[in-house]
Amino acid sequence: MIDDLIRNIREKNAPVVVGLDPMLDYVPEKILNTAFIEFGETLEGAAEAIWEFNKGIIDATYDLIPAVKPQIAMYEQYGIPGMTCFERTVTYCQSKGLCVIGDIKRGDIGSTSDAYAQAHLGHTRVGTHAFTAFHEDFATVNPYLGSDGVRPFINVCRKEQKGIFVLVKTSNPSSGEFQDRLIDGRPLYELVAEKVNAWAREGEPGEYGYYDVGAVVGATYPEQGTALRKIMPQSYILVPGYGAQGGKGSDLRGFFNEDGLGAIVNSSRGIICAYRKEKYAEFGEAAYADASRQAVLDMIADINGAIAGA
Amino acid sequence: MIDDLIRNIREKNAPVVVGLDPMLDYVPEKILNTAFIEFGETLEGAAEAIWEFNKGIIDATYDLIPAVKPQIAMYEQYGIPGMTCFERTVTYCQSKGLCVIGDIKRGDIGSTSDAYAQAHLGHTRVGTHAFTAFHEDFATVNPYLGSDGVRPFINVCRKEQKGIFVLVKTSNPSSGEFQDRLIDGRPLYELVAEKVNAWAREGEPGEYGYYDVGAVVGATYPEQGTALRKIMPQSYILVPGYGAQGGKGSDLRGFFNEDGLGAIVNSSRGIICAYRKEKYAEFGEAAYADASRQAVLDMIADINGAIAGA
Repeated sequence: MIDDLIRNIREKNAPVVVGLDPMLDYVPEKILNTAFIEFGETLEGAAEAIWEFNKGIIDATYDLIPAVKPQIAMYEQYGIPGMTCFERTVTYCQSKGLCVIGDIKRGDIGSTSDAYAQAHLGHTRVGTHAFTAFHEDFATVNPYLGSDGVRPFINVCRKEQKGIFVLVKTSNPSSGEFQDRLIDGRPLYELVAEKVNAWAREGEPGEYGYYDVGAVVGATYPEQGTALRKIMPQSYILVPGYGAQGGKGSDLRGFFNEDGLGAIVNSSRGIICAYRKEKYAEFGEAAYADASRQAVLDMIADINGAIAGA
Repeated sequence: MIDDLIRNIREKNAPVVVGLDPMLDYVPEKILNTAFIEFGETLEGAAEAIWEFNKGIIDATYDLIPAVKPQIAMYEQYGIPGMTCFERTVTYCQSKGLCVIGDIKRGDIGSTSDAYAQAHLGHTRVGTHAFTAFHEDFATVNPYLGSDGVRPFINVCRKEQKGIFVLVKTSNPSSGEFQDRLIDGRPLYELVAEKVNAWAREGEPGEYGYYDVGAVVGATYPEQGTALRKIMPQSYILVPGYGAQGGKGSDLRGFFNEDGLGAIVNSSRGIICAYRKEKYAEFGEAAYADASRQAVLDMIADINGAIAGA
């Protein structure tokens, strides 16, 4: 699957991912009203509005981008209708040729992590049949429980040709509270990165030289990104925190390898809420998806400029 | 909510929680076949079988126990029907007067953690209405992202009278890989415990002197439990790993305070799969719920014996 992702990135010349993290508050009023007329001001109505909102953005951007990253929390808050909308979004994106990175940040002890891995990347057996529950292509995984908690995901990746991104250094302001603490003189996140590198190397690299075990490192920490790039040279880095969280394209050079590969940069609000930004206000609410398309084009130019060292 | 949990524990004289972590493999054949006849060998069929299995155990044990802890991964693997079964199980347990601890181990950056907190402990706003999505009473939370990731859960707890248990030292064999690493001479899990204590003390203790922010510490690490008890003297400790994972009642004395309170011990497989154990084999598969009841009675005696220092 890492090969599929890299092939998509190369074909579209776009090491970016659109974060489908919709809040109801982001949805244009016309879409909201249509959904509420049909389903009422209910969880079903909210899920329908988010689905239509997502579909507009996907239709307007899928030819430009290699992947999307739906944040499952944003769907989970709308209960069962929200989870149904999540699955529907995954299916629709895959039908458009996009890789889907489920931003689920799951992680538990062995047998429980295995259940999560099956839920999101694998197959669930029922009698003599097997079903895919949420069937993303990649998932994000929390490492706090150690190898026990991560290895079930890796096993499912190897069997199903999927991939994971393990949280190493997250983009939020308080990520350093535990992740930066020094252990034998080195920050915890570097030890996690060394584990990511070791877990990756238990498998075989794909055709571009990258493994199916990657890492999450926030755009808001560019120096750390450069150091971590070297610790996990053949692991892809998923980079959140660009745009709304403050990360800039020019900060991101160090997340990439010399081959121009090795990282994929996510923007969520900066793309899906572009129509609310002054820069794209001319599009207006009705053309919110066109605003997202322009924001994707601008982001790709910014990131590619950074890779080229411009 | 911590007061409701403690009141339940005292009334039933039972500092235990039953882990509703069903695998399809645990469900007696009669229940399985009935569900498959109605819904086929499908995710719906699996979810129906698990629901009936759960209901049997809840009906046979609710008068003995203060709380249940459904592990959401076990439901998530059955997709939308599984999540529906999770919510149905939460609702049913609450109707029986049980506190429900959602073992969800969520944790993300601020706005995303807020969405998880609303999904599991709070209300989701849709237009002028507010809905509860999964409405557990407590949730488990992963601390790897720091205060940013935990505080949204705490805020929702304070507003909604709910509670959380933060992962401190987990029960699995590889929990030490990161959690035990020394920082300024002390293991990471102690630093997390100090944060738990600080987060708790930003609020007010309840009528029994305990806060709404607790911790998860595995029964498999009794020495650490004793040390951690002192670092977070007024935080409840949720103790997994008893029974099937190897923790014994006699190991658990140190998890409790002098008042006999301060910890609640979970058993999952040891209770819900009791009928498969030699000790309870006489019950037979048809009376699986009676076997669970007997296993609960034995567990309560074991834990209470440990607290009494017997």
